[in-house]
Amino acid sequence: MLILVTNDDGIRSPGLRALQQTLQELGTIAIMAPDRERSAVSHALTLHSPLRAERLAEREFAIEGTPTDCINLAIHGLLKQTPDLIVSGINRGANLGDDIIYSGTVAAAMEGAMMGVPAVAVSLECLEFDGDELARAAEVTAGIVRHVSRGGLPHGTFLNVNVPKGHHRGHRLTRQGRRRYPDQVVEKRDPRGRAYYWLGGGGSEFESLPGTDFDAVRQGYVSITPLHTDLTNDKSFPTLQRWGGGNFFVESL
Amino acid sequence: MLILVTNDDGIRSPGLRALQQTLQELGTIAIMAPDRERSAVSHALTLHSPLRAERLAEREFAIEGTPTDCINLAIHGLLKQTPDLIVSGINRGANLGDDIIYSGTVAAAMEGAMMGVPAVAVSLECLEFDGDELARAAEVTAGIVRHVSRGGLPHGTFLNVNVPKGHHRGHRLTRQGRRRYPDQVVEKRDPRGRAYYWLGGGGSEFESLPGTDFDAVRQGYVSITPLHTDLTNDKSFPTLQRWGGGNFFVESL
Repeated sequence: MLILVTNDDGIRSPGLRALQQTLQELGTIAIMAPDRERSAVSHALTLHSPLRAERLAEREFAIEGTPTDCINLAIHGLLKQTPDLIVSGINRGANLGDDIIYSGTVAAAMEGAMMGVPAVAVSLECLEFDGDELARAAEVTAGIVRHVSRGGLPHGTFLNVNVPKGHHRGHRLTRQGRRRYPDQVVEKRDPRGRAYYWLGGGGSEFESLPGTDFDAVRQGYVSITPLHTDLTNDKSFPTLQRWGGGNFFVESL
Repeated sequence: MLILVTNDDGIRSPGLRALQQTLQELGTIAIMAPDRERSAVSHALTLHSPLRAERLAEREFAIEGTPTDCINLAIHGLLKQTPDLIVSGINRGANLGDDIIYSGTVAAAMEGAMMGVPAVAVSLECLEFDGDELARAAEVTAGIVRHVSRGGLPHGTFLNVNVPKGHHRGHRLTRQGRRRYPDQVVEKRDPRGRAYYWLGGGGSEFESLPGTDFDAVRQGYVSITPLHTDLTNDKSFPTLQRWGGGNFFVESL
């Protein structure tokens, strides 16, 4: 089994190395990761400039691009063989609720799923990595990878895994939680008196709904959320079909 | 009604100006758009560097950032009042199927929806903008905006609108289509013989499934796809719940 490991914290991240070490018992590891941190780049693709790939070892490349670039280059270019599985992480900090849409870690797994490769994104709740925490999270990942490699995943589906700090209380199958938006912009002045702005000043808060990723991690469980790439909101069809007394749309689903 | 207009082609794009001109009949327009083209940046957020905002006119700012940055700065910083509606576009080129995940145009509308503001992303099939095409697409948008401003949108839902080239045959309510992946990496050599890579070499192809956005536009209809920010794949729960003979997850949904 060929396992492609990537992340958005960059190729030197200890999270990536923890995965490499633990998952090599399950198969051959290929690494293709950004050459430096690329957090919050979401699903960005580099189309306007060419990409360089530095070969660091057999099946190991540092890419001057985003996590999504890495998956594209791996599958359509640099790997001789399509990987059987993609694991993205271990991310420094949880990727929960609506915030996953900003995450490069999650985007890499999604890109794999779009190309038909089963994929798992893994994030660890703590912001400071420590060896024990990482080893535990890598073991959790290995357990999940064993299940995925045995049974596969439904078409277009990938897993968003969040591991809590410390010893976990088991695995929970969860839904994507919902973010509550605080004020997020901090205004500053430069020495010449002109304004500039920082985003993300407020930090994230989530609605504490039972069954969500956020709720599981908060209670010490490993959260496993099956996600897919289809954003269609089926449930909104009936409402929209009533537009213009039912005459706005010429044909309906 | 305050309508915030943004895009990912940059503040000088004729697509944005066509919206401004047509939508000003429906309400007050605020413009907050990237200072230059930011295509394929997806939902990227600028967290590592501060953002500059250049005020060009009353309620009109050019932002040194991504479309997602623009929405954040607008709602949490620069606008005195939360907009009643966000319109993102008119994008040069369609945003269809799985490709929407890369789109800055769609990401801006999604960001609005996450903040509770009804939002519409609009893209035009032709890559070369012409005045007549743009005026037609802006009229289509105005028609949709009228319906949205009257009835709102279901919670967390936003609309992805694609306008075909030429005269359209009416509106269709559609699903997000599925991309078929061609080879996408082109390898080149620099004058020193070192390899570099271009992504997106293959162009996009979609599966031609009835009811999809792709299918509607191909047949000359305006495609309106209701999307949401919840990526949870509910349908995959039963499959995953069987892991480990039903014992892998300690609690299920």
